[in-house]
Amino acid sequence: MKEQDLKIDLVPGTDYKIYQDRKKFSYGTDAIFLSDFIKTKKTLVDLGTGTGIIPLRVYKEGMKIYGLEIQKEVAEMAQASVDLNGLTGSIEILNMDLRQVEEVLGRSSIDTVVSNPPYMRAEGALVNEDENFALSRHEITCKLEDIIRVANYLLSPLGDFYMVHRPDRLVDIFYLMRKYQIEPKYIRLVQAKEGKKPNLLLVHGRKQAKIDLKFLDPLIVYKEDGSYTDEIMRIYYGGYKNV
Amino acid sequence: MKEQDLKIDLVPGTDYKIYQDRKKFSYGTDAIFLSDFIKTKKTLVDLGTGTGIIPLRVYKEGMKIYGLEIQKEVAEMAQASVDLNGLTGSIEILNMDLRQVEEVLGRSSIDTVVSNPPYMRAEGALVNEDENFALSRHEITCKLEDIIRVANYLLSPLGDFYMVHRPDRLVDIFYLMRKYQIEPKYIRLVQAKEGKKPNLLLVHGRKQAKIDLKFLDPLIVYKEDGSYTDEIMRIYYGGYKNV
Repeated sequence: MKEQDLKIDLVPGTDYKIYQDRKKFSYGTDAIFLSDFIKTKKTLVDLGTGTGIIPLRVYKEGMKIYGLEIQKEVAEMAQASVDLNGLTGSIEILNMDLRQVEEVLGRSSIDTVVSNPPYMRAEGALVNEDENFALSRHEITCKLEDIIRVANYLLSPLGDFYMVHRPDRLVDIFYLMRKYQIEPKYIRLVQAKEGKKPNLLLVHGRKQAKIDLKFLDPLIVYKEDGSYTDEIMRIYYGGYKNV
Repeated sequence: MKEQDLKIDLVPGTDYKIYQDRKKFSYGTDAIFLSDFIKTKKTLVDLGTGTGIIPLRVYKEGMKIYGLEIQKEVAEMAQASVDLNGLTGSIEILNMDLRQVEEVLGRSSIDTVVSNPPYMRAEGALVNEDENFALSRHEITCKLEDIIRVANYLLSPLGDFYMVHRPDRLVDIFYLMRKYQIEPKYIRLVQAKEGKKPNLLLVHGRKQAKIDLKFLDPLIVYKEDGSYTDEIMRIYYGGYKNV
């Protein structure tokens, strides 16, 4: 990546810094909503970590976090952000295909697995010319089923799985989570405005837990007048709850 | 049932009359929301029809509707309501266990199947002393999986399945629908108020259809001031859309 495309931003709600690339790699609001939804314990794996935004936003002292990222360029950028914040060793960016995770991390060794995966179904998707962009947005190397299967492999019994995704994938999500013994426990819909259909969803499952789904009140982004709701202001500017 | 417990009401939004029993059998708002959600074609089966409210509310001239009901007493009351409205033969109440449907109706013979089933999971449910009440509210004789399996049996390819249920059963619903090849196409959440979690859901699936789930805008029951929303007023008093 070109030096002149790099910039350094603050990770919202923390004092950490993060590299972003103006052209190719920058995190989205979805990753911020997801990090706010996650309750961390001791170990965490972020499947498809991109810029490393989620590890940097949820890190607390004493944790060990792994961020898996298949694209070499963005994995290097994420590792540079980790190093920049003096978190080398505490957060480890692994430049690898998550389907090879067995070679690096042990079965049932992790208490929390999270993912903000590519949203578009691979089959029939229009793929952008820029391969990096396509990899980030589409299920080319990283299918939903791979993510959930790998989460099952990594998680200890009753370990937590958190994901952000599009509402139109909810059948796939629930079907695959149950197939891989990660029972969905909480779902939170994200709506642009009150009274409207959701455009995003946050799901929290637990490995081998009993069946018991709860809907949470939706996360509303905008008030009627078009300004942000208090909760969005808290998420973005109010400081991260874990810090 | 005792004569003095019987009363005759109007089916909301129609000119039809319906028997209800003050003590045991009366329809709920859920059945009304579901009937408003259904788009009928030529043939319809209502699995667990109770008082027959859904057949009476969605009937249009030329249709053939079957209402299956396992409880003899309420099945007789539903048939009496059908006869009272001169719909004998057009709506047929079958007093039977839906798991025996193969003996009466042919595979792939129906274009629309609907259900407002018992909501509570059978295992560990507190069962009311009154057996009729328990049968209506709990999955004792009628498990969610039976309903969806029977819907698959009855429906012609691309036939429509409509159900109302509790949000906490959504994983079961999606998992079982996909298992029995009824792909969920539309989901509508019902909320008491804007910005709150849902307390009911309406789902519309289609047999052997391609994967493509859409969330609809939620159905909001109350305005901020506690009065009914315009949509609820339309559903209850505005006349049934099919009539």
